[in-house]
Amino acid sequence: MFDSVRLPHRLDKQRFAALSEPLRERLLDAQFELAERKHKTILLLINGSDGAGKGEVLNRLYDWLDDHYLETLSYGPPTEEERSRPLEWRYWRDMPANGRVGLVLGSWHHRVLRDRVLKRTDRDAFNTALEEINRVEEMLYRENVVVIKVWLHVAEEEARRRLAKKREPEGARRPPTVIEWDEIHGAEEHKRLARIALEMVEKTSTGYAPWEVVAAEDARYRDAAVADLLLRTLERENAESAPAPAPPAPRPPAAAHISLPRVSLVSALDLTQSVDAETYAASLRDLQQRLGDLATSKKFARRGLAAVFEGNDAAGKGGAIRRVRAALDPRRFRVHGVAAPTDEEHARPYLWRFWRNIPRLGNVAIFDRSWYGRVLVERVEGFCSREDWMRAYQEINDFEGQLARAGIIVVKFWLAISADEQLARLKDREARRTKRYKITPDDWRNREKWPLYEEATNEMIDRTSARGAPWTLVEANDKKFARLKVLRTIVERLEQEL
Amino acid sequence: MFDSVRLPHRLDKQRFAALSEPLRERLLDAQFELAERKHKTILLLINGSDGAGKGEVLNRLYDWLDDHYLETLSYGPPTEEERSRPLEWRYWRDMPANGRVGLVLGSWHHRVLRDRVLKRTDRDAFNTALEEINRVEEMLYRENVVVIKVWLHVAEEEARRRLAKKREPEGARRPPTVIEWDEIHGAEEHKRLARIALEMVEKTSTGYAPWEVVAAEDARYRDAAVADLLLRTLERENAESAPAPAPPAPRPPAAAHISLPRVSLVSALDLTQSVDAETYAASLRDLQQRLGDLATSKKFARRGLAAVFEGNDAAGKGGAIRRVRAALDPRRFRVHGVAAPTDEEHARPYLWRFWRNIPRLGNVAIFDRSWYGRVLVERVEGFCSREDWMRAYQEINDFEGQLARAGIIVVKFWLAISADEQLARLKDREARRTKRYKITPDDWRNREKWPLYEEATNEMIDRTSARGAPWTLVEANDKKFARLKVLRTIVERLEQEL
Repeated sequence: MFDSVRLPHRLDKQRFAALSEPLRERLLDAQFELAERKHKTILLLINGSDGAGKGEVLNRLYDWLDDHYLETLSYGPPTEEERSRPLEWRYWRDMPANGRVGLVLGSWHHRVLRDRVLKRTDRDAFNTALEEINRVEEMLYRENVVVIKVWLHVAEEEARRRLAKKREPEGARRPPTVIEWDEIHGAEEHKRLARIALEMVEKTSTGYAPWEVVAAEDARYRDAAVADLLLRTLERENAESAPAPAPPAPRPPAAAHISLPRVSLVSALDLTQSVDAETYAASLRDLQQRLGDLATSKKFARRGLAAVFEGNDAAGKGGAIRRVRAALDPRRFRVHGVAAPTDEEHARPYLWRFWRNIPRLGNVAIFDRSWYGRVLVERVEGFCSREDWMRAYQEINDFEGQLARAGIIVVKFWLAISADEQLARLKDREARRTKRYKITPDDWRNREKWPLYEEATNEMIDRTSARGAPWTLVEANDKKFARLKVLRTIVERLEQEL
Repeated sequence: MFDSVRLPHRLDKQRFAALSEPLRERLLDAQFELAERKHKTILLLINGSDGAGKGEVLNRLYDWLDDHYLETLSYGPPTEEERSRPLEWRYWRDMPANGRVGLVLGSWHHRVLRDRVLKRTDRDAFNTALEEINRVEEMLYRENVVVIKVWLHVAEEEARRRLAKKREPEGARRPPTVIEWDEIHGAEEHKRLARIALEMVEKTSTGYAPWEVVAAEDARYRDAAVADLLLRTLERENAESAPAPAPPAPRPPAAAHISLPRVSLVSALDLTQSVDAETYAASLRDLQQRLGDLATSKKFARRGLAAVFEGNDAAGKGGAIRRVRAALDPRRFRVHGVAAPTDEEHARPYLWRFWRNIPRLGNVAIFDRSWYGRVLVERVEGFCSREDWMRAYQEINDFEGQLARAGIIVVKFWLAISADEQLARLKDREARRTKRYKITPDDWRNREKWPLYEEATNEMIDRTSARGAPWTLVEANDKKFARLKVLRTIVERLEQEL
């Protein structure tokens, strides 16, 4: 594939000068239009063999573009901060908002490629990693992040020659960085790199994020070609007419449903379970003690915990979370209450705001509502299309898999109460001054959609109970029972994992 | 995942009777609406462990639906006809047209699953096969084929019990079929089947074709649940408003292109190459002889040849094809001239009409224009969206990979002539009575889009020159030179492969 890149691609000084002026003008125009419309993020990934001029291309683009709307995202070996989180975290952390262009050096392909060249991974792991990359890039595409993947190509011999020359001046090797291929030596390894890079390019050239292989022997041609690629993408995305706001998903009236009895996991719970005050007090003390010990243990320092709380309105998530929190070192946990997305969050893929809050190793993050909003409230209320929430199950499974691989233990709770119990609690909240802030007209509206929420909940649990991240259903009509079950589940899971 | 299926799901006689009447009425209404609108094909894949009642579900749906618009696609062990073609062929052959519902027994998942359970494939091959299934199903989804994948679930012990009972009456085992799991014996293998089936369900539950796991212990519930699933899908797809006809892709005026010299493989060809009449005659005889021998050899009987001819208008595809054809046994080859799709073809995914014409083993299929129309004329003329032709590269690579795995040798020719030579040939055609039928106003219009076609051609060659199916560029200003190069390429490729 990409044989045309082996042909001579050159630009002489005059042609380059003649080109660069209109190129620059149009790039600026296109960039401002993107910044104004704020409908897409453009990520330009600059990859290639050593000495192909990745940094030079970046500098040239900085000369030509307006740096107010431009970001460089450059990744070397992970910093201490980055090492204590999943590999993917740093890319998510830096995700530019819609309307902006990001230039990426050392993209997520780099490590996968290097590990395979150095035989740190086998074919199976390599292929699995590439497939996961494809899924992530499809998600980005559907979430308005346009990824341009450039591979700067120089012939293998030329690449080796350049690298050798680059090293001479200092008389010593530069410190290895992740962006460069310094760990790769000798003709054999370079051939292997070229071969495996091509394999990666083939397997990750998809319709939504194809690779563009650019001839990089001549610097002028190389820079102009990458700039032109960026220009074409910007102009194409700007030319796209604004999509009509998605109408709320049409729903057949509830009466039209065939009344097939849907036996859901939630409906099968025995909500009468309860616990008496004395047992509660004793168990609570015991469990909190154990949780505190576990969370400060040496083994936990290399792990992390993400605890997700979902459930019916008024099911007692807050109370359960308080009992967990009370057992933890306040410097080592954070509770993230998830409300409607901010402007910042709205301008990025929906998972971004959760990636921001992924705990460091040794820490605990508690999510009071979570990424599951995508397949619950956003589905039921029609805030996203069916296609969006249908693909979210796989995206969420991938996301939680990435957390698990990084050592983060994921626990997920669904706190379930009956419709009657909910009614009683909502009325109680209305009646009590201190609790009035906890109730909104939404709570009453949501109640009317109880069957739709139950359907969505059941499908969510069925489709996202992965082995590494199972759901725990909590019978929560009795608050004390629910709190103990939550604590016990966390404690037992930690004991098992550590 | 799918834990809810383990809960008891039952329907007593009265409830079933009360349900089935409205279910049936609405199914018929929805089916007629689909048949009228002809915008989608629905494939309902009925899978599950042995004895889960796949056939019974099928029979029930036949009772409830109108069989004029219904097809059963049932696949057992491959027939002789099917064995002489790629595995995927039979599914493509039977693809129902838009407006119809297909009920599939023994879908493409079956063999992948069975081979893994019986350890005929390793993890790597299993995962690769699942990823390919995902890509094919995404393509079907985007090509208006809605795939509903049902897994009928019965507990392992129950499945074994039913199977044993089923075998008793005759006192002997039934002959093994692919639909059933007869090759799988004993508790251990059944456990393995259950485990690997779940893994497959997890890995191939995508947003565009999720699995639906249905509790199948109670026949009434099972049948009603599958019918309800089909009904919901039909009603959802029918509710979808007709998409506005895609406007032709907006193109920036040609003048607006930055005049970056695009060095394409085609532009780098030396079109002055030619051959004298004497050499031509001698070489032609020799090559045709060798081709004839190869195509009737014993080794070729277990292979096949698909030869693709693309090129500029008037580049001499027809003449080259005639020289190839002349060397072959007329009973063993077919030439497929590809024109605008028929109604039949239009009502199915674009690859369907090529799958129809895939050669049997031992045979040759010549395509005078081909599936590459998707990324050439359809791209340039805006007959499909950018998203459609961008995904086509990967789809085509997958398609050709499937042919190659089945033993079919794929050769692809691009016949290139210069713009001047084309002009001369078109004028000559106009002037000569016998050739006037070969020229249309389109030929002149296409000439105006020469740069767009060249860009599309170069990208096509760059993105689809896979190792197993490389492009051969043929310098065709001299027809004799071109014909010899075509013949020589085929002969050498066959010699190398056989």
